[in-house]
Amino acid sequence: MLSVSGKNLIGYSVSGEGNQFFYGVNPRTGDKLPVPFHCATEGEIQKALKLAEEASFKFRHWTPQRRKLLLDALAKNLEAHSEVLMGSFVEESGLPRERATQELARSCYQLRSYGEAILSGLVLDAVIESGDSNRIPSPKPELRRVNLAIGPVVVFGASNFPFAYSTIGGDVASAFAAGCPVIVKAHPMHPQTSSLCAAVISETLQSLDCPEGVFSHLLSNAHDLGQRLVLAPEVKAVGFTGSIRGGRTLMDLAASRKEPIPVYAEMGSVNPVVVTAMALEAKGPEIAEKLAASVALNAGQFCTSPGLLIVEENQKLEEFVQYLSLIMSQYPEQCMLHSGIFEPYKNQVEQHAEELDIRVGGVRQNNFITPALHEITGSNFLKDVRFSHEVFGSYLLIVRCASELEMTCVLSSLEGQLTGSVFCQPNEHLAWWDLLQAKVGRLIVNGVPTGVEVTYAQQHGGPYPSSSMPASSAVGGAAVRRFMRPVVFQNCPDSLLPEALKDANPLGILRFVNGSYTHEPC
Amino acid sequence: MLSVSGKNLIGYSVSGEGNQFFYGVNPRTGDKLPVPFHCATEGEIQKALKLAEEASFKFRHWTPQRRKLLLDALAKNLEAHSEVLMGSFVEESGLPRERATQELARSCYQLRSYGEAILSGLVLDAVIESGDSNRIPSPKPELRRVNLAIGPVVVFGASNFPFAYSTIGGDVASAFAAGCPVIVKAHPMHPQTSSLCAAVISETLQSLDCPEGVFSHLLSNAHDLGQRLVLAPEVKAVGFTGSIRGGRTLMDLAASRKEPIPVYAEMGSVNPVVVTAMALEAKGPEIAEKLAASVALNAGQFCTSPGLLIVEENQKLEEFVQYLSLIMSQYPEQCMLHSGIFEPYKNQVEQHAEELDIRVGGVRQNNFITPALHEITGSNFLKDVRFSHEVFGSYLLIVRCASELEMTCVLSSLEGQLTGSVFCQPNEHLAWWDLLQAKVGRLIVNGVPTGVEVTYAQQHGGPYPSSSMPASSAVGGAAVRRFMRPVVFQNCPDSLLPEALKDANPLGILRFVNGSYTHEPC
Repeated sequence: MLSVSGKNLIGYSVSGEGNQFFYGVNPRTGDKLPVPFHCATEGEIQKALKLAEEASFKFRHWTPQRRKLLLDALAKNLEAHSEVLMGSFVEESGLPRERATQELARSCYQLRSYGEAILSGLVLDAVIESGDSNRIPSPKPELRRVNLAIGPVVVFGASNFPFAYSTIGGDVASAFAAGCPVIVKAHPMHPQTSSLCAAVISETLQSLDCPEGVFSHLLSNAHDLGQRLVLAPEVKAVGFTGSIRGGRTLMDLAASRKEPIPVYAEMGSVNPVVVTAMALEAKGPEIAEKLAASVALNAGQFCTSPGLLIVEENQKLEEFVQYLSLIMSQYPEQCMLHSGIFEPYKNQVEQHAEELDIRVGGVRQNNFITPALHEITGSNFLKDVRFSHEVFGSYLLIVRCASELEMTCVLSSLEGQLTGSVFCQPNEHLAWWDLLQAKVGRLIVNGVPTGVEVTYAQQHGGPYPSSSMPASSAVGGAAVRRFMRPVVFQNCPDSLLPEALKDANPLGILRFVNGSYTHEPC
Repeated sequence: MLSVSGKNLIGYSVSGEGNQFFYGVNPRTGDKLPVPFHCATEGEIQKALKLAEEASFKFRHWTPQRRKLLLDALAKNLEAHSEVLMGSFVEESGLPRERATQELARSCYQLRSYGEAILSGLVLDAVIESGDSNRIPSPKPELRRVNLAIGPVVVFGASNFPFAYSTIGGDVASAFAAGCPVIVKAHPMHPQTSSLCAAVISETLQSLDCPEGVFSHLLSNAHDLGQRLVLAPEVKAVGFTGSIRGGRTLMDLAASRKEPIPVYAEMGSVNPVVVTAMALEAKGPEIAEKLAASVALNAGQFCTSPGLLIVEENQKLEEFVQYLSLIMSQYPEQCMLHSGIFEPYKNQVEQHAEELDIRVGGVRQNNFITPALHEITGSNFLKDVRFSHEVFGSYLLIVRCASELEMTCVLSSLEGQLTGSVFCQPNEHLAWWDLLQAKVGRLIVNGVPTGVEVTYAQQHGGPYPSSSMPASSAVGGAAVRRFMRPVVFQNCPDSLLPEALKDANPLGILRFVNGSYTHEPC
């Protein structure tokens, strides 16, 4: 049976050297949870960093098969402890049990599928080109390229995904798949859930003789710990999911290092949804229902929650907005993750309400909310940049545009977004389609942005500030590449090549050999 | 016949609004060349930026076929003007005519092969996954992902590659292939060659009805221009080849922007070469000859020039070093690119000479040099970090290590490198092989680091400070990806999809469809 020690995990040691503590909170009641959590000390941090650096050299040479076994074992052990994990998740997050079940399943799926992305060779990108010693004027060398692990990664737990983007989440799964040790900075709003997950990871790693230091789990309720880790020379990359302010702080720190390192930060987004007049005419009620459900889902605490509904004035619009208002006003109260999310939500919605037309007021008390729906004209929206900023939680702002041109201006005024959604009819001409493409990482047609499929084709990450590295994805097998870099071997004998590049293809992976993809030896 | 106006190219307009001028120099004679070059004014810069931004929306939707035609036409027109281009190259760079010929051929090859990388689909990374509307509990959406251009790119001409990493170089070729407009900041040490190249580009683009603003060419001998461009909101990425100090300045500026952007900087490297005792015994003279030729090539003005020779003390070593010294001392004088390269080279070599054992003194006068060869023990090398820094030019430092352990310590003390080379015998055990892998982007066995093959399998870029983005390559078709980002289309009707993702595969590219690579429709 798992238990919560309230201590840090430094490699395989449970460690509570510090005398500073903090507590988890049940957001439904506001009650402090019983276990005190030890903030990591400088000595503990140093030990975790040193162990990670040492483990890095061993772990990066684990074969894909071995890494896949590790990820599968992790998923299996998490499932075996699902009752205690989900109980803690619900207690600390205020999210419903159904969500805990889904999120644990998603986390386990991520672990297994990122392992598969390595095992298949898909993210190793092995390329082999034969040489030509007779080429004139100079011989062509043989080149063999493959992605290798970059070294220790620091992952920040995300408060809105206590499983899927925290200690057992996508960043940890991708780093392990890539062959990188991970130091997790637990999110202070779910230290208990994070610690339980960490215990399962530690137990699994130990049972598979994984080098000590491939995983450490550090606790703190202050910002110092995260900043210290991002500045540590041993660390080679950072994974973060959270606010623009938090992400940008880490980006700036990482850029200030003697050796700058990449920060893969997945940050804020208002996820604009455009509904054309023809779509409104053809299926207004269906769109309203889908949209309301997406806004209301888990109190809107998703990076892909729709925050902006952009429409052109037309005859059916008022009827649509009335129906949308009716449905949105019927959603029951939901608990937010913690007061650090509830208070800014309350303040932003109340400030907007002073200046905008209120269609649905929503409820906001003691961490509990119902969705709010406001309205603004396109011209007023364009006058005040505040209205284009994310309100994290169930909040939708309808932007009523006087013309297609105004709609284009509204879209043009937006910063980078994770997603953009369009409800339209077949073969409609969308004047602003190219513009929307240039703003987002994912375009959804006749659907809502919530629900990010975990698969190789996925792209989760758009232009800044929605993410820090728009060319990478935080979801899907491709996320593993973030923690690797290509190394090429020139005229290298088979004995010195990594397994992925050896003539016989002992890993049986897909490789690009002299211009064709193949599983064959070369 | 091409002529040199001394003016900027702002889109298709020749523009010389400014009243500040600078001149090219012939480094062999020190003579100022006749044409005055107009420094770009703020008005000209703004116009170039605005044109690039506007052109971006049109150019990104050019089909791969059309972009390939453009790149081929560029190569062809450059070849047609080869006499005047090479004449200028030799006059401004001090490099031999043979090198001008090779570098022009390389540049044309890059243009053609990066076009091929787009045309084949290789760098578009098109991925298609069918949906499943019957999946339980929720339908699986259809996802189609492809790389799209990121927008205007600023490219800094490199003084050591007036063709292949300047106005017609790899960064420009990759940006055009990706579908990005380019603003080139000409290198002030070859303004004439750069302007001639720019004229050929402009003429070619115009003849193919390319939107104005896809290319601009700006002149200045001050740092302000480059800094201004990196900070411009219209710019979405930067390509740079040059010093660590220059690259880092641009990285810091780009990181300080409201919207941080990637800087692809390819910077310094000492390119360590390790020779094992067994290799020395078996083929010492051959290694010495290869190494000397590599160090001496074009006065060592390559990012991949070998600067460090790491060897373990053994019976054959002194004989080897004597032979290496003999060959190196026989190289004729060569002209360096300009005084901005010659002076730091002279100072560094002379400072080192005061503290190290001199095997070959070398010549240094009026921009002309011959190779220098110094010697240090492993233990002294480890005491002073200065000796691990790049001396740009023909300079080799032999590090004589007392043991394998000391050799490992020396390798371990190095910063990130573009390359690492090893001369060894078949099946030798190399205790430090994994360590070397972790430090470099390219490993060469029984060969020298100079000569970077332009091909898809290439990786040119290692850990910082050798490059700013070790996961990207500055050479080879993969370089095109630097200026693209993935966008995914969810449940998107065929009519709204980019050509690369349409059912019929109208571009005929290689795509990853439901788990397999194919050229077939889907």
